Amino acid sequence: MKHLMGLSAAVLLAATAGGEAKEGMFTPDQLPEISSDLRKTGLRLNARSLTDLTAFPMGAVISLGNCTASFVSPYGLAVTNHHCARGSVQYNSTEENNYLRDGFLADERADELPAAPGSRIYVTVQVDDVTSDVVDGIDAALSGRERFDEIDRREKALISACEGDAGHRCQVASFFGGLQYKLIKRLEIRDVRLVYAPADAIGKYGGDIDNWMWPRHTGDFAFYRAYVAPDGTAADYSEENVPFAPEHFLKVSAAGLDDGDFVMAAGYPGSTSRYARTIEVKNTFDWFYPTYVDIIGGWVETIEDASPAGSDARIKYESRIAGLNNVLKNFQGQIDGALRVGLVDRREAREAALNAWIAEDESRAPYAEAIDQVDALAEESAREAQRNFWYNNATRPQLLGAAQRLYRLSKERQKPDADRERGYQERDMTFFRQGLEAIERRYDATVDKAEWLFFLDLYLRAPSDLRSPALDAALGLDAETDLSDLPSTLESFYQDTTLDEKDARIELMTATPAALEASDDPFMALAVALYETEMAQEESAKDRDGRRAILRPQYMQAIIDWQRANGTVAYPDANSTLRVTYGNVLGGSPQDGLIYEPFTRLEGITAKDTGLEPFNSPKRQLDLIEAEDYGAYALRSIGSVPVNFLSDLDSTGGNSGSATLNSRGHLVGLLFDGTIESVNSDWDFDPRTTRTIHVDTRYMLWVMEKVDNADALIDEMDIVRN
Amino acid sequence: MKHLMGLSAAVLLAATAGGEAKEGMFTPDQLPEISSDLRKTGLRLNARSLTDLTAFPMGAVISLGNCTASFVSPYGLAVTNHHCARGSVQYNSTEENNYLRDGFLADERADELPAAPGSRIYVTVQVDDVTSDVVDGIDAALSGRERFDEIDRREKALISACEGDAGHRCQVASFFGGLQYKLIKRLEIRDVRLVYAPADAIGKYGGDIDNWMWPRHTGDFAFYRAYVAPDGTAADYSEENVPFAPEHFLKVSAAGLDDGDFVMAAGYPGSTSRYARTIEVKNTFDWFYPTYVDIIGGWVETIEDASPAGSDARIKYESRIAGLNNVLKNFQGQIDGALRVGLVDRREAREAALNAWIAEDESRAPYAEAIDQVDALAEESAREAQRNFWYNNATRPQLLGAAQRLYRLSKERQKPDADRERGYQERDMTFFRQGLEAIERRYDATVDKAEWLFFLDLYLRAPSDLRSPALDAALGLDAETDLSDLPSTLESFYQDTTLDEKDARIELMTATPAALEASDDPFMALAVALYETEMAQEESAKDRDGRRAILRPQYMQAIIDWQRANGTVAYPDANSTLRVTYGNVLGGSPQDGLIYEPFTRLEGITAKDTGLEPFNSPKRQLDLIEAEDYGAYALRSIGSVPVNFLSDLDSTGGNSGSATLNSRGHLVGLLFDGTIESVNSDWDFDPRTTRTIHVDTRYMLWVMEKVDNADALIDEMDIVRN
Repeated sequence: MKHLMGLSAAVLLAATAGGEAKEGMFTPDQLPEISSDLRKTGLRLNARSLTDLTAFPMGAVISLGNCTASFVSPYGLAVTNHHCARGSVQYNSTEENNYLRDGFLADERADELPAAPGSRIYVTVQVDDVTSDVVDGIDAALSGRERFDEIDRREKALISACEGDAGHRCQVASFFGGLQYKLIKRLEIRDVRLVYAPADAIGKYGGDIDNWMWPRHTGDFAFYRAYVAPDGTAADYSEENVPFAPEHFLKVSAAGLDDGDFVMAAGYPGSTSRYARTIEVKNTFDWFYPTYVDIIGGWVETIEDASPAGSDARIKYESRIAGLNNVLKNFQGQIDGALRVGLVDRREAREAALNAWIAEDESRAPYAEAIDQVDALAEESAREAQRNFWYNNATRPQLLGAAQRLYRLSKERQKPDADRERGYQERDMTFFRQGLEAIERRYDATVDKAEWLFFLDLYLRAPSDLRSPALDAALGLDAETDLSDLPSTLESFYQDTTLDEKDARIELMTATPAALEASDDPFMALAVALYETEMAQEESAKDRDGRRAILRPQYMQAIIDWQRANGTVAYPDANSTLRVTYGNVLGGSPQDGLIYEPFTRLEGITAKDTGLEPFNSPKRQLDLIEAEDYGAYALRSIGSVPVNFLSDLDSTGGNSGSATLNSRGHLVGLLFDGTIESVNSDWDFDPRTTRTIHVDTRYMLWVMEKVDNADALIDEMDIVRN
Repeated sequence: MKHLMGLSAAVLLAATAGGEAKEGMFTPDQLPEISSDLRKTGLRLNARSLTDLTAFPMGAVISLGNCTASFVSPYGLAVTNHHCARGSVQYNSTEENNYLRDGFLADERADELPAAPGSRIYVTVQVDDVTSDVVDGIDAALSGRERFDEIDRREKALISACEGDAGHRCQVASFFGGLQYKLIKRLEIRDVRLVYAPADAIGKYGGDIDNWMWPRHTGDFAFYRAYVAPDGTAADYSEENVPFAPEHFLKVSAAGLDDGDFVMAAGYPGSTSRYARTIEVKNTFDWFYPTYVDIIGGWVETIEDASPAGSDARIKYESRIAGLNNVLKNFQGQIDGALRVGLVDRREAREAALNAWIAEDESRAPYAEAIDQVDALAEESAREAQRNFWYNNATRPQLLGAAQRLYRLSKERQKPDADRERGYQERDMTFFRQGLEAIERRYDATVDKAEWLFFLDLYLRAPSDLRSPALDAALGLDAETDLSDLPSTLESFYQDTTLDEKDARIELMTATPAALEASDDPFMALAVALYETEMAQEESAKDRDGRRAILRPQYMQAIIDWQRANGTVAYPDANSTLRVTYGNVLGGSPQDGLIYEPFTRLEGITAKDTGLEPFNSPKRQLDLIEAEDYGAYALRSIGSVPVNFLSDLDSTGGNSGSATLNSRGHLVGLLFDGTIESVNSDWDFDPRTTRTIHVDTRYMLWVMEKVDNADALIDEMDIVRN
């Protein structure tokens, strides 16, 4: 014992000294620039082959909107995280067929079930740099608001032209704060079907308790299939549709991925703030996160008090409660992490170093000037965010939101489609309608009212200069208002509204402004009363966006030049576009005295199991583990089937479901989480503690073969066994 | 990296396969029986030398009542945990001299401060087996209650005779459920002084957040000094007193304790239930723990709502809140642990194995019969506990408790001292008075009333057959009572009582029953009204105790014989008497995928530090760490000064402050906690996960030398440097 345990200290020292995670969410076109490091880290493919998003392997990586997925068969079979497909499992579950509890496996293709409404698979078919189209020749003298409108107009025109090709969805994505714009064209597959999802007791094993935690034992995988019209074009659900034949799909590895091996993940990370200014960091960590953290506890309590456990209302709000608790854990983790690493000090030091570099050469002076303006603008934005915070919370009722969107739609519909606000164009109407429909599944009047009271209480206690005259007037709030007066005021909203009926909401999608202004629905009347206030907020935000669009690129250019001078390649903040992050399978030491092993084992499931949700493995699985029935999926170095593994990849929300590839581009796992010590990396990448969590394809295949008898799917895939 | 990290998996496999903790809290007289294992594990002293509690090294190990301490100099200097001495630090703290915040170090002996009232140091001077005195010749036909009284009478007589030697405190301790009785005679040192305690930011580093957690970085040490009269006898505090000269004291090691080395701890573990029957396990884990866990959240909330943060009331209740949260974490940890290991199944399997062994041989049949009766009695006890639970909670008000104790005292004082109930004899009066005085520091009427309402609400919601007619009558509760009626009823208790005045309470220590029965103090009147109810509960409990006293020893004899037949030595459940547990410095793997390293390092303090309590190390300490100023205290294998370490020792509450000794009997640490995965071991020792946490003497000495300049104390001790 002594000798062996002594080594673990050595391991730790090595881990903290040399085992540092690799920062960077690179756009594929950046990879040739870092090809030598990719090779050194272990990639055996040519880095250049990763730059073509429509070729292998990137062409197999697809987006679900909020998650990433990958094609894994010639017949449109796509694998993603269980938590990304769970909405579709839930949508198809009934009391008799409880797929959440029991899992779902289509016996044959005809049994595959429609995914939840609005489910999409986006296959990238073309990416073009459109920077010059977006920014060239814009008059420097334009006001912020005018510049915003001009950029917006150009982007919409590019999108509209691109979407002239039916069945495609296009976006203009901005990189480096507007230094670069790309037009991304994606095939929008609208007929998505659920093929296979293990039971929650596997796919969601550990639940909220294990969320962001290591060690982890979650079977976070599920399968969709993309369907298209017989002619291969995107189409709505139809029995006649046929499986989509992707140009590329990934081989799935059951081979020997081990500690230290090269891995990379391709996916769609949502948003990071790696280049945020100190002012933005302080506003977030000194004000926004702590303020919001303070609110969340009471908010969750409010929802829970208003919806008895087990009630229909509670079921409707379960995902909101889980979401709020998730945010709470994340924000608290970020606050803790920021204190631990001294985020503000580090950011100030970075800015001082950048300033020093700028000062070295007179020709860089314009950078300094732009940065000063970036900071002034950040300050102004922070002030506005704080100003609007209590009002924005006080206008959270769901039916008010619906009324506001409908009234805005009535106004926008009077303009030509190209001139309408984003979200209100014809191309948006399917999602708009689905949004109105979805209220049905997540609205309860009692809970909504309790939440509104909770937020009005906070609003009334906020400094009086942050009050909205329009809201005060509409609700009859003044300095004397006592919270106890409010319930009866609000009650009439819920009694007299018809917006709680789905058909009523949908019908109003074609109403005129005048008709809505004449409505006696209390929520609609409130929406009309608040319209000018909302527009003023939007006006001011767009003006700041327009000013930012000229300043931020200069700041980012300074960063890029400075980093290049230091021999590193700057990558843009995450923006939901395809990125590649690479590194190695790697355990870690998140704290002195604690070591994360790189892999977890089947036996760890049994050890965690209490029989109670979320630690209630199916008996069949526990029996197989007891029998050490590992099949072809064991990893010799750990003496079992690997369940989840850690890597030093750089990931964030939106990366969920990302294909984790080995050095040859085979699928070895699905990225599904980061450790709690990593959440702060959205702001400041900490190479010592950042670790990403993946489900191992060997566990996925083991469950499919041994537990769920999904042999047909295994046969459909191209499995690499050594 | 790859190669080294690969080893950590090997380490884990080794750890789970071979690194199993050693169960057993042995009485010193059992050690010769296990001497070969002690030797094999690494002890270099003769096991027999550990059996004499009045010789080295056991003679240096002393009790503080709830904690353990050790003499470490010829001048009565005693080291214990910071958390064991913190009450004395608090007692001496003022706004000007905030020793909790700044730490305390007496410049010279004259500056040493009196410890908190009631502080004691108990030095064991004699231990005798008195089993035959206690049990021999008791008529088998006696009722339970009669047997209880007879045993009680004999024990009191033994104690009384023993305490004839002034300045000593004696107890009769029962082992193996009454199979063995020992009379323990201890010198009761009443003049205890605070010598040195580091600041909370060292001694309580990590606070409640790190409580029961690893990795740990707590400097949980502090020093008392024992004072006696110039003639060497125990005495109350006096300026004339002199340091006590212990016969034995421990040398303190600054040498190379490392991973895998032998360690043993000598201390006073409070209570375990290793031999509890399945019925008792189920009552605890299926009913008591979950019921209590459900209550605690609301209870803490009630206290917090009634005592605004920062208020005097909150300060008075802070330790209760901390205590309740501590219990909550413990009970929840136990519940989780029990589910994880399958406690009930394991206990049932053990009982089946014991039954099988009994069935093997006809001569063992009486065991089977006794065990059946043990189970029937356990069932009865569980039923009674559940019956009384809501009533007992509903009678928690502090002044009611004081009134009940005072009224009982008035009754007991009418009997000869030897016949009085324990706790009401002359020997108990100092503590009795101190208990009445202490209410002053932890009572607030508003909070107390809120708590009472909280518990009466639960009482009213309990099944009606669990109601107490006496309590219902006294408070006017009936089936129609609504909680909203109660506040005004209770208000009069708090308005009309005088028991909230210390002097009034103390004065009543000499009142007669008649005087108290005539009292119009509402709490006293309620105490009188509930007296018969309370006596009936006590009567029934004593009767069960008396019956248990004849059954439990037979069950334990069966266990002992059975274990001996299996080649193991049974040890008695913890009972606050001196025990020895031994094993090795050992990290662990509490979960698949996670490794606890055996030592933490100074650098871990800096990494944890946020500047906010409880992670707010003194700047001086952080600077010393930054400078790697390790002095003579570094451990080469970890590259730093070890702060805390893990071992596989078997410990529980009461062990706090226990001397951790190396193979030569030198002090290498102080035991201060167990990991959360260990708490369940009170019921069912889990060798895989049980780990005990110690503060390393090298960290203690480093802080003393480098941070707090306590060189004089270091000089006073005998430091072993290699």
